[in-house]
Amino acid sequence: MAKGLTSRAEDFARWYNEVVQQAELADHAPVRGCMVIRPYGYALWENVRGALDRRFKDTGHENAYFPLFIPASFLEKEAEHVEGFSPELAVVTIGGGKELEEPLVVRPTSETVIGHMYAKWIQSYRNLPVLINQWANVVRWELRPRLFLRTTEFLWQEGHTAHATQEEAEAEVQRMLDIYAEFARNEAAIPVVKGRKSESERFAGAVASYTIEAMMGDGRALQSATSHDLGQNFARAFDITYQTAEGGLEHCWTTSWGLSTRFIGAIVMVHGDDQGLILPPRLAPHQVVIVPIWKSDDEKAQVLGAADKVLAALADFRVKLDDRDQLTPGFKFNDWELRGVPLRVEIGPRDVAAEQVVLARRDMPGRQGKAAVPFNDLAGAVGEMLGTIQAALLERARAFLEQNTSEPETYDDLCSAVAGGFAVAWWCGSADCEAKVKAESTATIRCLLFDQPAESGACVVCGARAAERAVFARAY
Amino acid sequence: MAKGLTSRAEDFARWYNEVVQQAELADHAPVRGCMVIRPYGYALWENVRGALDRRFKDTGHENAYFPLFIPASFLEKEAEHVEGFSPELAVVTIGGGKELEEPLVVRPTSETVIGHMYAKWIQSYRNLPVLINQWANVVRWELRPRLFLRTTEFLWQEGHTAHATQEEAEAEVQRMLDIYAEFARNEAAIPVVKGRKSESERFAGAVASYTIEAMMGDGRALQSATSHDLGQNFARAFDITYQTAEGGLEHCWTTSWGLSTRFIGAIVMVHGDDQGLILPPRLAPHQVVIVPIWKSDDEKAQVLGAADKVLAALADFRVKLDDRDQLTPGFKFNDWELRGVPLRVEIGPRDVAAEQVVLARRDMPGRQGKAAVPFNDLAGAVGEMLGTIQAALLERARAFLEQNTSEPETYDDLCSAVAGGFAVAWWCGSADCEAKVKAESTATIRCLLFDQPAESGACVVCGARAAERAVFARAY
Repeated sequence: MAKGLTSRAEDFARWYNEVVQQAELADHAPVRGCMVIRPYGYALWENVRGALDRRFKDTGHENAYFPLFIPASFLEKEAEHVEGFSPELAVVTIGGGKELEEPLVVRPTSETVIGHMYAKWIQSYRNLPVLINQWANVVRWELRPRLFLRTTEFLWQEGHTAHATQEEAEAEVQRMLDIYAEFARNEAAIPVVKGRKSESERFAGAVASYTIEAMMGDGRALQSATSHDLGQNFARAFDITYQTAEGGLEHCWTTSWGLSTRFIGAIVMVHGDDQGLILPPRLAPHQVVIVPIWKSDDEKAQVLGAADKVLAALADFRVKLDDRDQLTPGFKFNDWELRGVPLRVEIGPRDVAAEQVVLARRDMPGRQGKAAVPFNDLAGAVGEMLGTIQAALLERARAFLEQNTSEPETYDDLCSAVAGGFAVAWWCGSADCEAKVKAESTATIRCLLFDQPAESGACVVCGARAAERAVFARAY
Repeated sequence: MAKGLTSRAEDFARWYNEVVQQAELADHAPVRGCMVIRPYGYALWENVRGALDRRFKDTGHENAYFPLFIPASFLEKEAEHVEGFSPELAVVTIGGGKELEEPLVVRPTSETVIGHMYAKWIQSYRNLPVLINQWANVVRWELRPRLFLRTTEFLWQEGHTAHATQEEAEAEVQRMLDIYAEFARNEAAIPVVKGRKSESERFAGAVASYTIEAMMGDGRALQSATSHDLGQNFARAFDITYQTAEGGLEHCWTTSWGLSTRFIGAIVMVHGDDQGLILPPRLAPHQVVIVPIWKSDDEKAQVLGAADKVLAALADFRVKLDDRDQLTPGFKFNDWELRGVPLRVEIGPRDVAAEQVVLARRDMPGRQGKAAVPFNDLAGAVGEMLGTIQAALLERARAFLEQNTSEPETYDDLCSAVAGGFAVAWWCGSADCEAKVKAESTATIRCLLFDQPAESGACVVCGARAAERAVFARAY
């Protein structure tokens, strides 16, 4: 039960922490930086996972499982990779009671160990493409942890593919980015901006990194998934070669792409309000909660009898019947609002008499979100209402993204724009200009847009000729 | 493709390693003792997981996720627990580039960290029972690794529950053991012996451990799942208390239960034959493989056209169409036999003309396992045949278990009996007698039967009065 949430306007970061813990999505683990994903949060993750896994399998990917431990020497085989990940590593130095000869790194990501195995498995062009994904935990030491957003251990999926040609690898990278964007939009009701990372934000070891960026309720960006073109960098480092149809020997072209439990944080921060979570119906652990309302024991028997029938009528949905004793309907309303259940079904004695229930939308508080629906049309009405809510959440998020995206033409305008949203502006490509923005406004280049204007412009920082439009924002 | 499997009779252990690797279930990882679960093996694990997960959820359990890292001091809070697990631990001593003040243990099992969280979450009898499961990786340092059977890292599920009374906890322990046994029987076609572990084989920290033991194709036992009654041991160590309805404060009663990727090893060793795997239809990644047979290009077009229709007709099953070019039907037959696909559908030009296909059972080689089935009855015939195969695998395993279980009355008979199977014999309960059997025959007490005779007998080792019948066997 909400013990009075801080409002989003008052302190967004605090609101986030409170809602994550009060709604029982997650809790802090005894080891600093680690988290416990509680059943309600994990059920949400299971739905995220299921929706993505279907998409991966439909596009020919298979799941596998690679080991948690990676020899420390593996990371050193790709120079940028080891430089990027070294500061974040957890290292096992003792195993089975003995000091290890070679320390083992707890995987921060699995390009190296998977590259090693691919080198063993791939012989010929006939073995290609290799399209493998894994669902796993990874560890990156985190000094400023926040539940879901930045945790030392997190859950994710990491796809790793190997191809015969550069074109195929590039197509895979774009295909998976598109899948992430489509998933975010259609399952999580989160519109995203797609684009390419600047060099400074690129994955350590990649030729190019692509991202989907979502706007949180405070106007900040959250990198929601990434897709990397690894070129032949890892193939060279791990000797992943194949015999061509003509008999030659070539290095493979590889990709990797991932989405993590961070995405749960995005769902919280895009849709939530001052009453708590608002979960998109397609991913919500409970799409519907039935709250029976009674005073006397007679009423209770009558109402619970009807509630059981409602439960049966809604068997095609994920429904929770809250028949807890000794809690008032008002308490239950608040409790399920905090937990973001998209649709509430209220049923009291008068409803039973009228052979109806009252539907109440989580995303639309008060009378305007309520509607009486007769028993005999319940499943149809609930299905339709859930679709309406899903669409309304997406539309609200889309409008918010649009309203809070500006196109500043001066450096000062850029700095004030990023205080409350995304700023799309010309960038000359210089790392110095990028660093200056970061130092002075804390905003970073989230991505370079795919759709670039035909003409060029003046860099918003230095005024030099700029060929690309960049999205600047403060980010989680 | 099988490069000539060692026969089971010649060298069962070698046969096992070859079939696991040649069928591409798993491979050795670069770190000794770790494994890579390849897509085919992981698909099998996904089906195991799905079948169990449904059963857990149907009995009111929820999934959650607890952290990989456990403070080393946590293990020390339960004296037997730390003694049992210390020799097997992997320890992280460096994090984020710095030596850690307190080393972190990579979870070998999660009673301690989950106990810590339960102490925080559980306040009152109203919070009970807590019924949580997690799917996770765990690490136990392994000096004699074998793929799936003994690996330093493995995947498993671990259920952890907390109850208000001893009776409820004991009922949960038995309920989960029954679920494992029912799952093994009905999904994996593996009959099991249920029973209680002797004190020496009990889980470190448990009051009582229960097990399901399966007989492998060489007569050895494999502990396939365990369910532990933890009494109040962990509740006391981690201060998991609750306020009773009467206002008193009591320690909870907790349980834990688990099944791991070891179970894949059981499926391999219970059902496999000298041609490779035989997978039970209910868990097989591909229940059916369609092998089209052609010689000329005309035949190919005709046969592949029909094969596509067969594929569509079998949409309710997990079906693989093997339309690979440049491989002979004979090669494909062997390849899918090695991989244990339960049912093969052969379709050649004469079959197309006769509007039929030939079904070939994996578990029954040669003519007697073949049947021609007309196109128009295909889905029904395939469904029935898969059911028949599933039942036949279970019956064969049941008969094998029965034939290779003896009831020796002398110590010498016991020692020879355990060379090829299970031996059920009287045991006086003395750890010395148990140790003598282990030292002289390498067999251990797998469990003490639930159904005990009313009368007592003479211990098969020392002749003293014995109240219980024990199952002795050499074990994996």
